[in-house]
Amino acid sequence: MAGNSFGQALRITTAGESHGGGNVVIIDGMPAGLELSEDDLRHDLARRRPGQSHIVTQRDEADAPEILSGTFEGRTTGTPIAILVRNTDQRSKDYSDIKDLYRPGHADFSYDQKYGFRDYRGGGRSSARETVVRVAAAAVAKKLLAQVCGTRVVAYVMQVGEIRAQIAAADRITEKQVERFSDGTPNIVRCPDENAAKKMIALIERLRKAQDSIGGVAEICVSKPPLGLGEPVFDKLKADFAKALFSLPAVVGVEYGSGFAAATMRGSEHNDIFVSKGGAVKTKTNRHGGMLGGVTTGMPILLRAAVKPTSSLPQKQQTVDRNGKKTFIRTKGRHDPCLLPRFIPMAEAMIALVLADHWVRVNGNRPLP
Amino acid sequence: MAGNSFGQALRITTAGESHGGGNVVIIDGMPAGLELSEDDLRHDLARRRPGQSHIVTQRDEADAPEILSGTFEGRTTGTPIAILVRNTDQRSKDYSDIKDLYRPGHADFSYDQKYGFRDYRGGGRSSARETVVRVAAAAVAKKLLAQVCGTRVVAYVMQVGEIRAQIAAADRITEKQVERFSDGTPNIVRCPDENAAKKMIALIERLRKAQDSIGGVAEICVSKPPLGLGEPVFDKLKADFAKALFSLPAVVGVEYGSGFAAATMRGSEHNDIFVSKGGAVKTKTNRHGGMLGGVTTGMPILLRAAVKPTSSLPQKQQTVDRNGKKTFIRTKGRHDPCLLPRFIPMAEAMIALVLADHWVRVNGNRPLP
Amino acid sequence: MAGNSFGQALRITTAGESHGGGNVVIIDGMPAGLELSEDDLRHDLARRRPGQSHIVTQRDEADAPEILSGTFEGRTTGTPIAILVRNTDQRSKDYSDIKDLYRPGHADFSYDQKYGFRDYRGGGRSSARETVVRVAAAAVAKKLLAQVCGTRVVAYVMQVGEIRAQIAAADRITEKQVERFSDGTPNIVRCPDENAAKKMIALIERLRKAQDSIGGVAEICVSKPPLGLGEPVFDKLKADFAKALFSLPAVVGVEYGSGFAAATMRGSEHNDIFVSKGGAVKTKTNRHGGMLGGVTTGMPILLRAAVKPTSSLPQKQQTVDRNGKKTFIRTKGRHDPCLLPRFIPMAEAMIALVLADHWVRVNGNRPLP
Amino acid sequence: MAGNSFGQALRITTAGESHGGGNVVIIDGMPAGLELSEDDLRHDLARRRPGQSHIVTQRDEADAPEILSGTFEGRTTGTPIAILVRNTDQRSKDYSDIKDLYRPGHADFSYDQKYGFRDYRGGGRSSARETVVRVAAAAVAKKLLAQVCGTRVVAYVMQVGEIRAQIAAADRITEKQVERFSDGTPNIVRCPDENAAKKMIALIERLRKAQDSIGGVAEICVSKPPLGLGEPVFDKLKADFAKALFSLPAVVGVEYGSGFAAATMRGSEHNDIFVSKGGAVKTKTNRHGGMLGGVTTGMPILLRAAVKPTSSLPQKQQTVDRNGKKTFIRTKGRHDPCLLPRFIPMAEAMIALVLADHWVRVNGNRPLP
Repeated sequence: MAGNSFGQALRITTAGESHGGGNVVIIDGMPAGLELSEDDLRHDLARRRPGQSHIVTQRDEADAPEILSGTFEGRTTGTPIAILVRNTDQRSKDYSDIKDLYRPGHADFSYDQKYGFRDYRGGGRSSARETVVRVAAAAVAKKLLAQVCGTRVVAYVMQVGEIRAQIAAADRITEKQVERFSDGTPNIVRCPDENAAKKMIALIERLRKAQDSIGGVAEICVSKPPLGLGEPVFDKLKADFAKALFSLPAVVGVEYGSGFAAATMRGSEHNDIFVSKGGAVKTKTNRHGGMLGGVTTGMPILLRAAVKPTSSLPQKQQTVDRNGKKTFIRTKGRHDPCLLPRFIPMAEAMIALVLADHWVRVNGNRPLP
Repeated sequence: MAGNSFGQALRITTAGESHGGGNVVIIDGMPAGLELSEDDLRHDLARRRPGQSHIVTQRDEADAPEILSGTFEGRTTGTPIAILVRNTDQRSKDYSDIKDLYRPGHADFSYDQKYGFRDYRGGGRSSARETVVRVAAAAVAKKLLAQVCGTRVVAYVMQVGEIRAQIAAADRITEKQVERFSDGTPNIVRCPDENAAKKMIALIERLRKAQDSIGGVAEICVSKPPLGLGEPVFDKLKADFAKALFSLPAVVGVEYGSGFAAATMRGSEHNDIFVSKGGAVKTKTNRHGGMLGGVTTGMPILLRAAVKPTSSLPQKQQTVDRNGKKTFIRTKGRHDPCLLPRFIPMAEAMIALVLADHWVRVNGNRPLP
Repeated sequence: MAGNSFGQALRITTAGESHGGGNVVIIDGMPAGLELSEDDLRHDLARRRPGQSHIVTQRDEADAPEILSGTFEGRTTGTPIAILVRNTDQRSKDYSDIKDLYRPGHADFSYDQKYGFRDYRGGGRSSARETVVRVAAAAVAKKLLAQVCGTRVVAYVMQVGEIRAQIAAADRITEKQVERFSDGTPNIVRCPDENAAKKMIALIERLRKAQDSIGGVAEICVSKPPLGLGEPVFDKLKADFAKALFSLPAVVGVEYGSGFAAATMRGSEHNDIFVSKGGAVKTKTNRHGGMLGGVTTGMPILLRAAVKPTSSLPQKQQTVDRNGKKTFIRTKGRHDPCLLPRFIPMAEAMIALVLADHWVRVNGNRPLP
Repeated sequence: MAGNSFGQALRITTAGESHGGGNVVIIDGMPAGLELSEDDLRHDLARRRPGQSHIVTQRDEADAPEILSGTFEGRTTGTPIAILVRNTDQRSKDYSDIKDLYRPGHADFSYDQKYGFRDYRGGGRSSARETVVRVAAAAVAKKLLAQVCGTRVVAYVMQVGEIRAQIAAADRITEKQVERFSDGTPNIVRCPDENAAKKMIALIERLRKAQDSIGGVAEICVSKPPLGLGEPVFDKLKADFAKALFSLPAVVGVEYGSGFAAATMRGSEHNDIFVSKGGAVKTKTNRHGGMLGGVTTGMPILLRAAVKPTSSLPQKQQTVDRNGKKTFIRTKGRHDPCLLPRFIPMAEAMIALVLADHWVRVNGNRPLP
């Protein structure tokens, strides 16, 4: 009802704010028998972590996860898994002088209207800080998917400002290509088109210096999705993916397959032809993005999410205070000049959670073999 | 779990296929005391009805709704409202020769993989036929919204193929402008830019004759939304809107406010400045589309949905049968050359259902005064 | 939220009142491939039907079910199954003179307080009439259980007034023993202890003539339950069973296994000893009623429900009207002098729905083989 | 789905076992503006705490709650409240020698069947340890109820073995009477009939020395319940109360109002007569236990729960091991010879959670004034 749970058969419930004791997630419905330790969570948490490169926010969080329950002798027990991530680098003072101001592009005003008052420290619950436990929970979901159906979720930056990547075969992009340049150095913008990546990094640096920010587009590819997954009507897989991505801060658009480009296409050019390939039914092309009728066809799932430019800007902006009085604001907190690099693990997380939930819906929650 | 319910505090559950006894919806959670009769449902059902003009499918359904329960002496009682819409024009024979073939762009293959077999008559549950009871339920939701908060949902066609409408002030578009040209004749494409509308109609007619189809974009505007509506994190209003729209057949993209255009924008040009207007806090511009942090700001809500070209084509297309054998198919059923005109009431319906659900979440289900 | 859905993985949603167009249920989550026709529903509907004997209400309902959706060529398709049962014998006039009075023991007053007004015809939604579609839905659930795990649910009358049945081995009682005496004549009270049954029938007849009513206890036995079914903590199987039974009208108590008698027992006499029997672990005795920790042990499940005496009485009773003015009332509708005989199929229905839901939770909703 | 959430509009989700990092609850849906600090939680946690007297288990847990999120400047913010209670007194070795044995009356066998293996330390998730966070969450629910509708939930021990308390007016029993004798000393058995209480304590002590345990009955009274609360059909208030109580370990029976005694009553003696009292409609007697049609009448709500004798016994009991081999077991952990005294705050907790959930369902989750 109040929107802090996600999923049905495999459901996560989260709590926590930017500041305070920490963030916690309870994962309910995970089958018993999955090998799991805190080490499994660290990889994606590190990819999401602030302070990981000079083009992201310099807030420094250790993001050390503690599994409080739900595992025994290195395996999930089938009971709920609680994961706690403490907040450490809390500079509440950064925010105290803006507690009565409405930051442009932020939830300050709408939260005040909804709740009567708000936790103004770092945006409280509206902060992207809350995604830390989504990413932790999704690391478990990814392990499940890998084990039960060999499904892999890989996201990468497709566009930053006007710079667009060229991706030949989305389902062949590996996480390694997203994380590292071919010379082994970190691909801090997470765009596997190296040429575009370098231009993106340069653009983001330029904007950071200009005290500005920039938007972009992420693409998510699911390879080897389970066949026939998704429910008809309201819980079409495309609908649950869209809700999942739009539930992330700053997402302003989602499309799959041909997406908005389909608006200008004829049916005769848009339809993907079914063909027989190695004994299996496939489609010749993949404009349908891996789902028909909201149910997977076995073709790679292709989604894109548009992310708006960071609203927090270190430059002076006009606004009003709680009394409607005109004033000016300059956000002093530490923020990302472009959200996309850290958005990548968040997008993967939400897609993995949807897939794992739908897998459990269909296959039940019996212990893993 | 199987995805045939939508909403939480105000929840609809639907059943029914393209063929068979009919479609039924149960609306649970509607407060007692709302005036309601079957007449209230007819208007939007007529807008959604097949056969209403020469640019939509010629299938002829009476779409006469019967309220089975939940009202007494002309008012809702607070108990569940069941609405039945019988199927009448069922030409099952149209489909029998394609029962073993996979129609390109349709759910035939994915449903077979999911369920082991399928009701092949007219797509069964994957048919847009099931939206008839969504529209009926939403007519009740619209009545609630109008009465309790004066909120209005208006959708219209924004783009068909390359033809784009020019809309000056979305929140001032009335349903009348969408339904009628200024000379009073029916605006059968439902685009309030009359100039564009006429070009769209001509394009759709051309494609129908060419045995082809065309995609497009719909825009939905919510004027006078309740302030502070929406839940943080997973049930952000934008997330529930997106799920709602993506749950409709053929939707391949959703964006709100600046949408995908935000990818190329700077924070300094994207942020909407808060200002005081007549004692109320507003934003000077509305690139944020009426929601910040997933919660309404009171500004008009602006959403767009991309709709793919109809997959059913009367022209010959290559495909495979259930055994993977290559064959050809020509869909003989009656279909829309462009889905957009009939998509308009469906889009309004889903947005109204989300808003009414969120309103009841916050305000509870006490009897209306 | 408004409480008209039941179950999670296999969920039913119902609508309908005592009077009006009819009652409808949507069953969501039933796996594809189960053979199903309207004939499968008639047996239990007939057992629940008013007018079936001289010791139950003489209201005459045809109770002919119509499956509106979710089946094709005699099998479930995996999509929602809607079942409609029309109301036929509606004598609204029976109730019009009591519309402003509060019948003792009825929901009239509490509904008025909740909804502001109510459908006073026959109790509206508070009438046992709404159970007709629960029984129809449960007939489908029973078919699923029989097919996938050979589980059988049998209920019978254990007590009417002071008359208690002697049941030697609950899990060996067959429905036939419940429905028929050993001489083949109908056991209209549904108590398999023939001696007790005859006394019960005589008592009920005596009370009917005295314009009074009597309470009783039903026992439900689940034989061959799936092993390890039930969820820890909130959805313990015992908790879901209790909710299911208490959701039926007139149920005022539920116990399982030793039940309230456990209050006077020592742990050393209450604990059931685990033993090995034919390669399987069993308990020597069954005071635990087939569930430990809310999860099945494989032993027969034993539940009992206490049912209060019918509140509607043809004799004069004191009450107040809507204005709080003292008055008298004599209920003229047709009512059961003892609810137990018709309660039996309702109790079986709710237990079967819980079991089927939990089975689908664990095993998923893949098509049946 | 996996049953670790409870409630709908106000929903709690719990995680944690007897051993491991601790237990955590997330409360979702609590309105903003309720004053709340960790001090508010300590009172009921202390009442539930092991080691509080010589007639309960001597396990020693600090049970110090930490509110991780959802409050700011001493008030709830409307965002989810996470509460963590660490485990401290963990003697895992107590249990290691019984890891392959099935303790009679425990969930060991059924959990093994369900999950394939189990956390055998102290019963894992089946331990009453998990109720610690239910009680913490309910302390918040109780605060809400007291503030918004003056509703009070008081439970007490009604029966231990054959000893039954005499309670004149349930709704006038105060928590103080339950917790203290009239001379101010602690009423360690929590029975407000002092005479009976002393006999109960003596009986429990006798059984503890005899290495045995004893069952009993608790009664819960809700005074000043909101009028018209509860939903018709599946979520009748009585049904949700029953599920709530049965979800607690060791509960084997629940009844309300007249309960099982109704089985022997006539309608003419069972019906409560409506009367007008001080301008309000009341019933002369309260055999209906405060609910009709599952909806409150405003009369005090009266419920009773039967609790079985503790299964863990320090005496030698026969059982089998995981291979079905006959063996003997003597539980060495620290356990309660009678569960009732510590059951009281747990029963209050579950009833308060149900009431608060239903209150939010009807009234919504707007900020408190």
